[in-house]
Amino acid sequence: MFDVSAAPRRLESYLEGAWRAGESEGRDIAHAATGETVARIGAEGLDLAAALDWGRRVGGPGLRRHTIHERALMLKAVGLKLMEVKEAFYQENFRTGATRKDGFVDIDGGIGTLLTFASRARREWPNARVLPEGPVEQLSKDGSFVARHVLSPMEGVAIHINAFNFPVWGMLEKIAPSLIAGMPCLVKPASQTAYLTESVVRAILETGILPDGALQLLSGSAGDLLDHVTPQDVVTFTGSANTGLKLRAHPAILSNSVRFTMEADSLNAAVLGPDAGPDSPEFDLFVREVAREMTAKAGQKCTAIRRVIVPAAQENAVIDALAARLGKAIPGLPDDADARMGALVSLGDRETVREQVAKLSAEAEIVVGDPSRVQTVSGDPDTGAFLNPVLLRCADPMRARAVHEVEAFGPVATVMAYADTDEAVTLARMGKGSLVSSLFTNDAEVAREVVLGMATWHGRVMIGNRGSAKSSTGHGSPLAPLIHGGPGRAGGGEEMGGMRGVKHFMQRTAVQGTPEMIAAVTGEWVDGAPVRDDVHPFRKSLAELRIGDQVLTDAREVSQEDVEHFAEFTGDTFYAHMDSDAAKANPFFEDRVAHGYLIASFAAGLFVSPEPGPVLANYGVDNLRFVTPVYFGDSLRVRLTCKAINPRENADHGEVRWDARVTNQKDEIVAEYDVLTMVAKTWPLKD
Amino acid sequence: MFDVSAAPRRLESYLEGAWRAGESEGRDIAHAATGETVARIGAEGLDLAAALDWGRRVGGPGLRRHTIHERALMLKAVGLKLMEVKEAFYQENFRTGATRKDGFVDIDGGIGTLLTFASRARREWPNARVLPEGPVEQLSKDGSFVARHVLSPMEGVAIHINAFNFPVWGMLEKIAPSLIAGMPCLVKPASQTAYLTESVVRAILETGILPDGALQLLSGSAGDLLDHVTPQDVVTFTGSANTGLKLRAHPAILSNSVRFTMEADSLNAAVLGPDAGPDSPEFDLFVREVAREMTAKAGQKCTAIRRVIVPAAQENAVIDALAARLGKAIPGLPDDADARMGALVSLGDRETVREQVAKLSAEAEIVVGDPSRVQTVSGDPDTGAFLNPVLLRCADPMRARAVHEVEAFGPVATVMAYADTDEAVTLARMGKGSLVSSLFTNDAEVAREVVLGMATWHGRVMIGNRGSAKSSTGHGSPLAPLIHGGPGRAGGGEEMGGMRGVKHFMQRTAVQGTPEMIAAVTGEWVDGAPVRDDVHPFRKSLAELRIGDQVLTDAREVSQEDVEHFAEFTGDTFYAHMDSDAAKANPFFEDRVAHGYLIASFAAGLFVSPEPGPVLANYGVDNLRFVTPVYFGDSLRVRLTCKAINPRENADHGEVRWDARVTNQKDEIVAEYDVLTMVAKTWPLKD
Repeated sequence: MFDVSAAPRRLESYLEGAWRAGESEGRDIAHAATGETVARIGAEGLDLAAALDWGRRVGGPGLRRHTIHERALMLKAVGLKLMEVKEAFYQENFRTGATRKDGFVDIDGGIGTLLTFASRARREWPNARVLPEGPVEQLSKDGSFVARHVLSPMEGVAIHINAFNFPVWGMLEKIAPSLIAGMPCLVKPASQTAYLTESVVRAILETGILPDGALQLLSGSAGDLLDHVTPQDVVTFTGSANTGLKLRAHPAILSNSVRFTMEADSLNAAVLGPDAGPDSPEFDLFVREVAREMTAKAGQKCTAIRRVIVPAAQENAVIDALAARLGKAIPGLPDDADARMGALVSLGDRETVREQVAKLSAEAEIVVGDPSRVQTVSGDPDTGAFLNPVLLRCADPMRARAVHEVEAFGPVATVMAYADTDEAVTLARMGKGSLVSSLFTNDAEVAREVVLGMATWHGRVMIGNRGSAKSSTGHGSPLAPLIHGGPGRAGGGEEMGGMRGVKHFMQRTAVQGTPEMIAAVTGEWVDGAPVRDDVHPFRKSLAELRIGDQVLTDAREVSQEDVEHFAEFTGDTFYAHMDSDAAKANPFFEDRVAHGYLIASFAAGLFVSPEPGPVLANYGVDNLRFVTPVYFGDSLRVRLTCKAINPRENADHGEVRWDARVTNQKDEIVAEYDVLTMVAKTWPLKD
Repeated sequence: MFDVSAAPRRLESYLEGAWRAGESEGRDIAHAATGETVARIGAEGLDLAAALDWGRRVGGPGLRRHTIHERALMLKAVGLKLMEVKEAFYQENFRTGATRKDGFVDIDGGIGTLLTFASRARREWPNARVLPEGPVEQLSKDGSFVARHVLSPMEGVAIHINAFNFPVWGMLEKIAPSLIAGMPCLVKPASQTAYLTESVVRAILETGILPDGALQLLSGSAGDLLDHVTPQDVVTFTGSANTGLKLRAHPAILSNSVRFTMEADSLNAAVLGPDAGPDSPEFDLFVREVAREMTAKAGQKCTAIRRVIVPAAQENAVIDALAARLGKAIPGLPDDADARMGALVSLGDRETVREQVAKLSAEAEIVVGDPSRVQTVSGDPDTGAFLNPVLLRCADPMRARAVHEVEAFGPVATVMAYADTDEAVTLARMGKGSLVSSLFTNDAEVAREVVLGMATWHGRVMIGNRGSAKSSTGHGSPLAPLIHGGPGRAGGGEEMGGMRGVKHFMQRTAVQGTPEMIAAVTGEWVDGAPVRDDVHPFRKSLAELRIGDQVLTDAREVSQEDVEHFAEFTGDTFYAHMDSDAAKANPFFEDRVAHGYLIASFAAGLFVSPEPGPVLANYGVDNLRFVTPVYFGDSLRVRLTCKAINPRENADHGEVRWDARVTNQKDEIVAEYDVLTMVAKTWPLKD
C-alpha cells in the first residue's frame, strides 16, 4: 500500500478521480517525537472548485443510485478491509507522537465507528433511497389531504475539515454518516498529521468499493475551497474555536445558508461528588480518570478534562493522589513500551501549551510539574515535543476567568474546589459550553441534581461510579450512538448520535397531498391510498407483493362466553372483563369489556391465511392502541393492508409492515396497530 | 383593552416587567391604505441588555418551574382568551392593508397555531421538565453502563425578529414552541405593523397567565440587542435575505455559537403537470391557486407563488385563464367588501415592487397589468399603497436569471414554460432554495418524479389534484405540524414541524452511567436500575406508584394443547403453529411454535392483578418484539416493571408505561414490549 519506512513522501490529494500533488515542493512535516521530516505537504494550484463540482456531478449521483442499506454495506466492507490492513496505520501513528494505546482510540476507534454506522443504518432505517420520517399528518377531516416528512440526500459535497489529533477517527466518524446519507465527501485533514489520513484514504480507495467521486482528499491548505460552496453543500469543522469562527463567518457559507457544524475544544470538567471521600471507589475512579485524560494523547483531546472540580474538603487529597499518578507518567518515544505517554504533535504546539500555562498561572499555582523542564524515558526533549503533565490549583475559581477560558491543549489541568453542589454546577457551567463533563458520585440524588444542572451547557455528561467501574467507556470517548458536540464555546455543533447524525446530511421536506400521492412519493402506503385485494396478500412473496395489497375479513362476534373463556384460559381475569359493577365504576367503560389481547388474537384469526406460504413469521407489533371498548355482542372485522416493504440485502426475505385496523359493527375503530412480518423474496423458498 | 379608533398612539415596549416608551417622539407609521398616521414607534434609550438579563433571570426560571404540560395549558388558556378578543385585532389588521380574509390567516391562523402546539405537547410529550429522547443505548455487554439523550430547556432568551406581513401569526408560531420548551421570549416585530403585534402582546399580558418575564416586546429598532446574546440564547429571524445575512453575521452570534434560524423570502414555484390539460380539474385548481397566491395579502407572503411553471403547450391557456381572473382582482380599501385585494403595506414598499418588476422586465414581458397605473374599487392610489396584479412571461427561463432570483414582494409572478418534467424540475430548483413549491397533477408517477426531484431544494412541497380540491389547505399556508423553512435562499431554517420545532429551543445532552443513575436523571426506569416488589404494582395509585415498582410472576408452561386450543378458539391456524413439517421448513423455526398473541395473552394472565383497583385500562402496547420462538413445553414467566409515569393535568388519572419482559425456562428473552395503562391518581376513585 505504502512504505512507512521510506524517505519523506510527498503527500498527494485525491481530487477529480486522480492523485495529485500541489505545484510546489511542499512544506515539511516533522515527526512529533524525533523531529525528522516524515512527509511534505502542499496543495498549491489544485483546482478545488473543479473538485467540488466533480463530487456533485459524479460522486453524488453514484452514491444516490444505491439504497441506504447498499451504502451501509459498502461501508461495512470498507471497514472490514481497513481492519485487515490497520497495522500500517499504527506504524504511521507513532510519527504523530501518539503511543499504540493512543492510536487504538484513533484507528480501531475510527474503524469501529464506521462499522457501527454501517450496522445501525441497516437495523434502524429502511432499505430505501428516500426516508419517510414521523407519522402521516392528517390535514383534513375527511382524510383526503395528508402530509408526511421525507428526508433526501443533499446534492452537494460534505466538506470535512478535521483536526490533527485524530487523523483516522476524525475522518471516519464524519464520512460514515455522510456516505450513508448519500453525500459524497471531501476531507481536508490538518496538515500536521495528514500523512496518516492520506494513508487511510489510499487504503479505502484501493478497495474499489466506493463509487467514483464519493471520497476526495485535500492534503494541504484549504485555499479557496469555501469560496465555492453552494446551498446543497455541508461543512463540518473540528479544531480550534478561532479557526472555526473564521470559517463560520465565510461569506459563501453565510450567504448560501450552508449548514456548518463546528466542534471546538472546550474546557471540559470532571466533578467529584460531595459523597465521594478519599476511601470511596468513586474517589479512586475520579483520580484515575483525570490522570488518564491528562496523559492520553498527551492531553491533546477536545474532550480532555481541563477543570478538576472537587469538594473543598477533598482538594488536598485529590492533588496528592493526582501528583502520585502524574509523577509516574513520564513521556517517551511513542513506540517505546516504557513510555507512559507520547509527545505533543509538534514543537510549536508545545510552545503554545507553555504560553497557555503561563496565562493560567496568573490565577492558579502549579502544584505538579514544571512546563519548562522536560524529563523523558526515551527521546530527545530538544527535538521531540515532549512535555510532562502539569497540574494547577486555582484558589478562587468562582472569581477566576482564565481557568475557565484558556485551553492548554496538552497534559494540563486545573484543580478547583467547591463549597456545595450548587457551586460545583456553577463552576462546570463557567466553561461556557463544553463537549463533555463527568461526575463521580454514588448518590443518585446528587447525580440527578448535578447532571440536570449542567445539561444545558453540555453535549454529553458521564456519571462514573463503582457500578460501572469496569464497563465505563470513560469521560473522553465520544461514541457513535451518542451525540458529540456542545453549545457555546464547544462550537454549537452536534455530530454522530446514531442515525440522528446521518440526518445532518439530508434535507427534510414536508410533502402534502392526497393519500395516493403521498404513498407514491414516500413508497409507504397511507390510509386512503389505492388498494388491491385480488388474492390474499399472505400468498404473495416480495416478488409479487406491493404496498396497498389488502385483505378485508369477515366479521366475528365477541360473546360473553368468548371473554369468559379467554379469561379462564389465559388467567387474565381483570375486573373490567369479569365484574359488571366494577367495570361500570371505571371511567372508561360502560360495562364489562373484551380483553385487548383477545381482540388482537381474534383479529389474527380473521386475517391470517394459514397454509404454508411466503409469510414466514410475525416478529412483532408496533403502536397498538385500543381505541373503542368492545362489549359483549360486538362484531369485529379487520382490514389488513401492506404498508411498507423492506427487502434485506444478503437474505432471502425482507420485513413487511402491515396496517391492521379492527372495526366494530358500527364501523368505529376498535384497535389500530402495525403487524410486523418476515416475508420470503420468492415462493417457494430456494434451498 | 385599547381603542382602535383613537388618535395615533405611541407604541410601547414591554421590557423588564413594564411598558416603556423610547426616549424620542417616535417615528410615524402610516395606514397602508389611507396614509393616515396610525401610530408612532421608537425604542431609543431602552436598555436591551437589561431586558435580556431579565428574561434569563426571571422569565426562564419562572417557566422552567412548570412542566411541559403546565406550560402547554398556559398557552391553551392564552389562545382561548385571544379568540375571545380577536375582533379588535381584525380592526387593527385593516390598517396594515390586509383584508378581513387576509387577516384570518394572520389572526385566526396564529391563534390556531398556538392552540395546536398546546394540544400536541400534551398529547405527544410527557408531563415532565426534562424530556428523555430515543431509546436507552447499551454501552456495555453486561448492561451496567448505558446512556440516554435528554432535552432540557435552554437557559437564555428566544429572540424572535419578525416580518411585517404576519404581525400576529409571525409572533405566535414562534413563541408557542419557545414557551412550551421553557424559554422566555423577546419579540421584535417589524416596525411597519408593530401596532398589531403590540395589541396582541397587551392582550396576552392582560390575561396574567404567563409567568413574569416569559414574554417581552421590543417596539422599535433592534439597536444593540444582538450585541448581548450568549450561548444559551436563540435567535430566529423572518424577513428579507439581506437583513437576515447581516444578523447571521453578527459577531456575538457567530462567536457564541448562537442558534440562528432564518426564514427568508424565496422564489417559490407552482408547477402544472404535463398531464393537466385545460379541461382537467388540475388546470383549473392551478390557475385558481396562482391567482389566489398573487392576490392574498397583496402578494406579500414569503410563501407566495412567484414562478408559474407550465408545459409549453399550455402556456397561452394558462396566461389567458390567469388574465381573466387577475383582471377581476381589483384592490380597494381593506374593509371594503367589494375589494378583491387590499393594499401593500406602504408606499415605499410599492416603489420597491415596481423597481423589482423593472428588473424582471429585462428578461420577461408583462402580459397582465401595468405597475405604473393603479386602478381601485375604493381608496386613493396616491396615498394608499395599492397595486394591481402584474403577470410576466419569460420566454427563455432555462437561461434567464432575474426571474429565479429577483423577488417582487407584491402581486407579481412570472409564467415560464417547460419542455418536459426534467426541465420543470430544473426550473423549480433554479430558485436556489425555496420555502415551498406546489405541483398540480393527477398522475402519481409524475408526482413521485417531480416531488423527489425538487425535494432537496424545498422545505415543503404541496401536490394539488381533484382528490384534495376541497380539503387542501393550499400552497401558501405553513401548518403547525409541518416544517416551515427551506434551504439556500430561503434561509436554511426550519420552524414548526410539530414537536420538532420545540426542540430548537432545547439542548440535547447524552447522559451516560449505570442504569440507576440514568433512571434518576431521566425519571424513567431503565433495565438494571433498582426495583421494588413489596406489593403488586397494580394495587398502587399514582400517589404510591414509583418507577421501578415490579412484579415477577410465576412460570407457566405452554403445551401443544394450549397452542392447538388457541388456534381453534381464535381461528389463527397459521402453519407455523399447526404443521410440523412446514414449520421446520421455515428458516426461523425448528418446529411448531406458539402464537405471538398467545404469548402476550398468557403474559397478561400472569401479570395482572384482577381485583378492582387503580389500574383502569390497558389502552395499548408499544414495540412488541417476539425475540425467541416458544416451543411446546417451554415455560414462560413475566417481569413487569413500572417504567414511566405521566400524570395528566386536569384529570383523575395518568398514563403508566410498563416494561414487560417474557422469558423462558432458559432465561432467554422470548418477548419484550411496553404495556400502556391508565392508572388513577388516588384509590379509591373520588366521585
